[in-house]
Amino acid sequence: MTIQDFFPIWNQLNADQQRRLQNSLSARKVKKGEILHNGDADCAGLLLVRSGQLRAFILSEEGREITIYRLFDRDICLFSASCIMRSVQFEVTVEAEKETELWVIPADVYHAVMEESAPLANYTNELMASRFSDVMWLIEQILWKSLDKRLSAFLLEEAAIEGTDELKLTHETIAKHLGSHREVITRMLRYFQEEGMVRLSRGSIKILDESKLRQLQG
Amino acid sequence: MTIQDFFPIWNQLNADQQRRLQNSLSARKVKKGEILHNGDADCAGLLLVRSGQLRAFILSEEGREITIYRLFDRDICLFSASCIMRSVQFEVTVEAEKETELWVIPADVYHAVMEESAPLANYTNELMASRFSDVMWLIEQILWKSLDKRLSAFLLEEAAIEGTDELKLTHETIAKHLGSHREVITRMLRYFQEEGMVRLSRGSIKILDESKLRQLQG
Repeated sequence: MTIQDFFPIWNQLNADQQRRLQNSLSARKVKKGEILHNGDADCAGLLLVRSGQLRAFILSEEGREITIYRLFDRDICLFSASCIMRSVQFEVTVEAEKETELWVIPADVYHAVMEESAPLANYTNELMASRFSDVMWLIEQILWKSLDKRLSAFLLEEAAIEGTDELKLTHETIAKHLGSHREVITRMLRYFQEEGMVRLSRGSIKILDESKLRQLQG
Repeated sequence: MTIQDFFPIWNQLNADQQRRLQNSLSARKVKKGEILHNGDADCAGLLLVRSGQLRAFILSEEGREITIYRLFDRDICLFSASCIMRSVQFEVTVEAEKETELWVIPADVYHAVMEESAPLANYTNELMASRFSDVMWLIEQILWKSLDKRLSAFLLEEAAIEGTDELKLTHETIAKHLGSHREVITRMLRYFQEEGMVRLSRGSIKILDESKLRQLQG
């Protein structure tokens, strides 16, 4: 994997710009559960995901979480470098959901190239628009979808990401993804179990009837 | 008011770029209640608000609305030109909340200049980051704040915008701003009235105790 795999506009940068970005790269390996970026407390730089999985979430004052998007191989985490844009007035936390290998581009280097390169600035625009779209989808989910639909969508998405019907997830973890409480998730999962859609056991959830879960989406 | 008032980076555009933007401007005057942009059905172009007030909202399948941000004098509406960014995968509707005077820059003209001008691309980035921040604020409101707090915040904001304590708003209109139902808003306003914070009469809400409303914010 090379830096070009992350930037389709690489060939529209001049040699000097390419060299500055390339030379600034540092490799980083993070363990599952590690926090990579924490609100506006730091500006870690742009994170290029080489392998693994990251999750960006927001945190309430009371410590409740909700996942706003996830990043996989070849994705770029822009908001860990939010200091490059003055108008970003919100704080996200980025956590490794799996062991993750990254390249980091320091925020100041990226910012300097973006200031002079229209292709990089426009590409950054597209990155932000993608994340914006994720967040708008989330708003619609929260506003118009009931929790049963959101939970079934989450279980099906997890099964697709992990390539398995046997999900190793605690109810607490699910609550954090969905901005809910553990007790509420447990109650809903028990309802799913009574309906024959899942089977619950300690630390895992087995999907028994995918099509019935899918029907919940309406 | 000139186009430079909308673009602080105007002087970083070259003469040709300035001329293309300037020559493409068309003036438009819209009545209160008029829809200026409707999801992905059109791509009206960039709207520059010269005077008046716009509101951007999303719409559920069942026709429920929630306001995601509002635009005032000298603000630019970017998502009415969302076709200039491929990655924008959501639909907002833009409506005039008051009689509004606008300039419109056609999407294709703006897009062409943005493609070649790093300053304009970076400025567009900042515009999007501002709207993104509005939406993240809204998510936090919906998730972590109860309706009494959101309603009191809305009433205080309206009073500030209109410069009056006597708000001409129906309960239906408030429900549309907050993504709620009219009945729910009416019930909460009656509670506010019992607590001496507002006085309700036909078609208007008078704020009696601003500091008490403010205390609700916690």
